Amino acid sequence: MIHNDVRSKGFVKKISLNKAIEIAQKSFGLFPSHEIKLQDQIIIDKILRIDIQSNRNIPFFNRSAMDGFAVRSEDTTLASSNNPVILRVIDELNIGQKPNMRIEKGTAMKIPTGGVMPLGANAVVKIEDTKPFSPSEIKIIKPISTTKNLSEVGEDIKKGRVLFKAGHRFRIFDRSFLLSAGIEKVVVTKTPTLALLSTGDELIEPWTPKMEIGQVPDVNSINIFDLSLNEGWKPRIIGIIPDKIKTLRKAIREALASYDVVLLSGGTSVGTKDYIPILFDELGELLFHGVSIRPGKPISAAKIQNKLVFGLPGYPVAALLTFQFIVKPVILFLMGLKNSEIPTIKAKISIDVKSQLNRLDFLRVKLQKEPKQKIKAIPISISGSGILSTIVEADGIVIIPETVEALQKDDDVEVFLIKWS
Amino acid sequence: MIHNDVRSKGFVKKISLNKAIEIAQKSFGLFPSHEIKLQDQIIIDKILRIDIQSNRNIPFFNRSAMDGFAVRSEDTTLASSNNPVILRVIDELNIGQKPNMRIEKGTAMKIPTGGVMPLGANAVVKIEDTKPFSPSEIKIIKPISTTKNLSEVGEDIKKGRVLFKAGHRFRIFDRSFLLSAGIEKVVVTKTPTLALLSTGDELIEPWTPKMEIGQVPDVNSINIFDLSLNEGWKPRIIGIIPDKIKTLRKAIREALASYDVVLLSGGTSVGTKDYIPILFDELGELLFHGVSIRPGKPISAAKIQNKLVFGLPGYPVAALLTFQFIVKPVILFLMGLKNSEIPTIKAKISIDVKSQLNRLDFLRVKLQKEPKQKIKAIPISISGSGILSTIVEADGIVIIPETVEALQKDDDVEVFLIKWS
Repeated sequence: MIHNDVRSKGFVKKISLNKAIEIAQKSFGLFPSHEIKLQDQIIIDKILRIDIQSNRNIPFFNRSAMDGFAVRSEDTTLASSNNPVILRVIDELNIGQKPNMRIEKGTAMKIPTGGVMPLGANAVVKIEDTKPFSPSEIKIIKPISTTKNLSEVGEDIKKGRVLFKAGHRFRIFDRSFLLSAGIEKVVVTKTPTLALLSTGDELIEPWTPKMEIGQVPDVNSINIFDLSLNEGWKPRIIGIIPDKIKTLRKAIREALASYDVVLLSGGTSVGTKDYIPILFDELGELLFHGVSIRPGKPISAAKIQNKLVFGLPGYPVAALLTFQFIVKPVILFLMGLKNSEIPTIKAKISIDVKSQLNRLDFLRVKLQKEPKQKIKAIPISISGSGILSTIVEADGIVIIPETVEALQKDDDVEVFLIKWS
Repeated sequence: MIHNDVRSKGFVKKISLNKAIEIAQKSFGLFPSHEIKLQDQIIIDKILRIDIQSNRNIPFFNRSAMDGFAVRSEDTTLASSNNPVILRVIDELNIGQKPNMRIEKGTAMKIPTGGVMPLGANAVVKIEDTKPFSPSEIKIIKPISTTKNLSEVGEDIKKGRVLFKAGHRFRIFDRSFLLSAGIEKVVVTKTPTLALLSTGDELIEPWTPKMEIGQVPDVNSINIFDLSLNEGWKPRIIGIIPDKIKTLRKAIREALASYDVVLLSGGTSVGTKDYIPILFDELGELLFHGVSIRPGKPISAAKIQNKLVFGLPGYPVAALLTFQFIVKPVILFLMGLKNSEIPTIKAKISIDVKSQLNRLDFLRVKLQKEPKQKIKAIPISISGSGILSTIVEADGIVIIPETVEALQKDDDVEVFLIKWS
């Protein structure tokens, strides 16, 4: 072994999940931001960097909420079936049209739903509550109160109101909502680019048609690619790098030159050929190596040329879980996200589960609905962190924290609903 | 009004939500399918049309699950700390390497995690459970049972096993899972193309910088665009069509020539200028007009030139909800999806809510966690179906079915967790 080998040090000083995330988050400044036009692109999953205030009142004008007649409510006070009030209809307004007459005492204007309220009018009588009286007159048969059946200017959103604060992650209707509020541009975090490298002499490209005994398809690159794309990021599969320290050093340096984040998988354990932590230490600052979680223990992270680099475990399930619970929160934090939270659901665990003090366990579970609002979390049998189908079949993840040694049947657990797609 | 006007007929014969979906689903054959290569593209959200069987055993070979020594378990039966068994180490295997020696009585082979088990061996002793004895020998200090610390060929997936059935909608890890199983191509539904048209004389393009009194930004095109893209479909915003029957007829015909599905919004009510149902009846077969839901009542659907056409309500919230609960299930069904289900959660409604017999109400709610696994569903105040922020703020939708006249505070409700993004 090489003198002063960081690999063994790393594993002796295993840190907690939260500590690992915190160290990585605090080692970097925020990713750069830029301004984008809402007309040009969808903004789902982008992260806002500057508060946005509404440029408009919504509704933009007093508008009718019904097909009917715009009136002065005070004209209808005495209306009844026996003594209807007769109003003169001075105009018929079309949708989108600006009224060019004013409602004076004793007059009304026909108006469609969404039509602009004429000046002087303060209520809309539904068409069903009127009767024709003459070609230019209608009967009103009951009184109507002020502001009835109309939406007032600024009722929904007032001009100047803060619509979203910096740190907000855009959702699907935010684009049209902002455009409605007269916003044309927003300042968001530049989409990070990610270089994905795998290492391991057993790996072959997953689309290789003929596989030899001893070979393993490199599924991590594809999974991390699909997951990153799903977050709205720009991943690129660099490929499989032979497990030689020179080749790895060169590949990491090349990736750092062109990408914001470098994610390696494999080669991060304490086996003789696991060079990643050594290279991290040599090329920059090794932030951590070894986290008290299962699966995922050998994960490492580094700051090299001021860039974020992760060494993910080679085992597919461990790679995915560490991506989800470490890499993703770190990148989102550096993108400026505030208040990120994985949705959870309460459930009862279906069997006893052993864990270990001072180690956090990720337990894959299937959910099953029971009577009386109860939900059962059924652990998926796990014979190894390499078995991808245990993730494919899981509805969520139960975290067994460091302070818990075992779960007992029917214990309440919180299930993280990982939306894998 | 035009003679025999389908608009009034439609509303007289309002049908139920489920009936509307069923009519539209049964009026068409499945969308065409095609074969795609897994190497070339992500497959998330695509729908499988032909069952897939595994081409490989997973694991592909007997492999070690630990760093250690491959042994014959029968050689270790008598091992103890006091009487260790001495085994001769005949080789050290690297990852990815195929062993070229056989384990005979009294021998062992050093093997890494994931390494190929040599013939003759039937268990792996962890490195921690061995001690060096001489440069070429190790001590085993306790017995090990057969198949311990190894994954047997086909243990996870047997060659020939059906991995996914036709009708499955692919999720994020399915691509690497299929590649691991030796699958290179899958037959999926061709991604449908959708033409999005809006109609209404009040509408302006939402990025128009200066808005006049009376104008309303066309948010429906953008929302339906973003929602469709989110489903993995190919939407295209055609734009705002003036509310004139000739222009609308021409626009619908042009859209039908180039797209699989045509979605109009606006112009589908019973107002004087609402030409959509009339045009549907003229150009093809009006499948329905008017569904007993609120909001969303005026939705209509047609079969024109054997293509699916919807007339969505003009009000943004109504357009979104009818997209989500009618258009989407119909399109997914025609794409071949089986077992589609919107995830739900049980909650208690926080206040009394009025509804109406024989009408299904969509109630937008926010969710709030309470002690003891309880979740409260708080209705968002709704002053009209046009107010988009009520959707932006909602965590889910409570459906009040046709048979229920009102909800009472603390009633159990099922909340549809619409993932808008």
